[in-house]
Amino acid sequence: MINISTLFKETDGRGTFDLTMEIRGCIEMAGIANGLCHVFVHHTSASLMFCENADPSVRRDLETFMSRIAPDGDSAYEHDSEGPDDMPAHIRSVLTQTEITLPVENGRPNLGTWQGLYLWEHRHHPHRRKITVTVIGE
Amino acid sequence: MINISTLFKETDGRGTFDLTMEIRGCIEMAGIANGLCHVFVHHTSASLMFCENADPSVRRDLETFMSRIAPDGDSAYEHDSEGPDDMPAHIRSVLTQTEITLPVENGRPNLGTWQGLYLWEHRHHPHRRKITVTVIGE
Amino acid sequence: MINISTLFKETDGRGTFDLTMEIRGCIEMAGIANGLCHVFVHHTSASLMFCENADPSVRRDLETFMSRIAPDGDSAYEHDSEGPDDMPAHIRSVLTQTEITLPVENGRPNLGTWQGLYLWEHRHHPHRRKITVTVIGE
Repeated sequence: MINISTLFKETDGRGTFDLTMEIRGCIEMAGIANGLCHVFVHHTSASLMFCENADPSVRRDLETFMSRIAPDGDSAYEHDSEGPDDMPAHIRSVLTQTEITLPVENGRPNLGTWQGLYLWEHRHHPHRRKITVTVIGE
Repeated sequence: MINISTLFKETDGRGTFDLTMEIRGCIEMAGIANGLCHVFVHHTSASLMFCENADPSVRRDLETFMSRIAPDGDSAYEHDSEGPDDMPAHIRSVLTQTEITLPVENGRPNLGTWQGLYLWEHRHHPHRRKITVTVIGE
Repeated sequence: MINISTLFKETDGRGTFDLTMEIRGCIEMAGIANGLCHVFVHHTSASLMFCENADPSVRRDLETFMSRIAPDGDSAYEHDSEGPDDMPAHIRSVLTQTEITLPVENGRPNLGTWQGLYLWEHRHHPHRRKITVTVIGE
């Protein structure tokens, strides 16, 4: 069995947005007990990650890390047509993932206790991000 | 339903190679309307990425970025048996992905407007890269 | 057909642990000839990677690389409640992958000759890592 849902997530600029509840909703709606859930972001300047879900400082430190290795406005970038955060957003997306698969058991996402699934917006301006969720199983 | 195809891509050295049309071909051939398409590179010195497909400067900047964080011939590397680009190629592969899954809808890859799927060759010499494409769905 | 297995891997601190044989075992036990095998780590401070499986210096150099871009005890990190390797472990996990899918053909993992699947423990203390393996196919 296969079930496909489309989600739209409004971001208010660079930062992380917990998708775990939305994904759980897609899995419940799919009526699939055991299998896999694939989450896909239709963009190259936002991405997905599993991250520790208890202490928000982890996600702040990840921003610090990314700002250090791929700083905004770096003069080494040729591509800056949409501004100083244009190319860093592509780099951050390539270093993380724009598609992720998670196990489904008993109709629920089977994640670790401290794992949350986050959408990571890499652009400073708010965006409306399209996400396709495919649940496959039986 | 499952369909497995094998692709071979000849690269002419370090750089990115658009696979989107080949993957679309595999999906069409599979005769599967809805599901997932998994793309797998059988190597540890080439990788896959979704990247902005309109402006080639994005991919040039990604090369610049990788050359900066994982430079060829870095004296910190112990493993250089195949040359100064040997270890950087492994690092670049680990930082990106050697396997990627994309959604299939109505017999087509369901990608964003600006998303292309690229093979990223990390070695300077030309290579023949083996890719397994698995389409699963109904 | 779907088959779900749970593995536990005891790590003795930071380093890489070859999972290829365990994964092969899960696939054989699943009795599935062709399809996909999804491997999922239930943690945010350990990850997965395909890596060259012949020369251990590759994995030593990857440690060197990660120690350089995400050093332990960096004063830029706010999150250090579990010690100087706490935040670097999260960064390393996000830069690599905590879930990976590989092709299954004729009841075997269809990997390249030089590809091994490794669990990468990023914490210095030993941990017991939970891994869910889902085989889907026919």
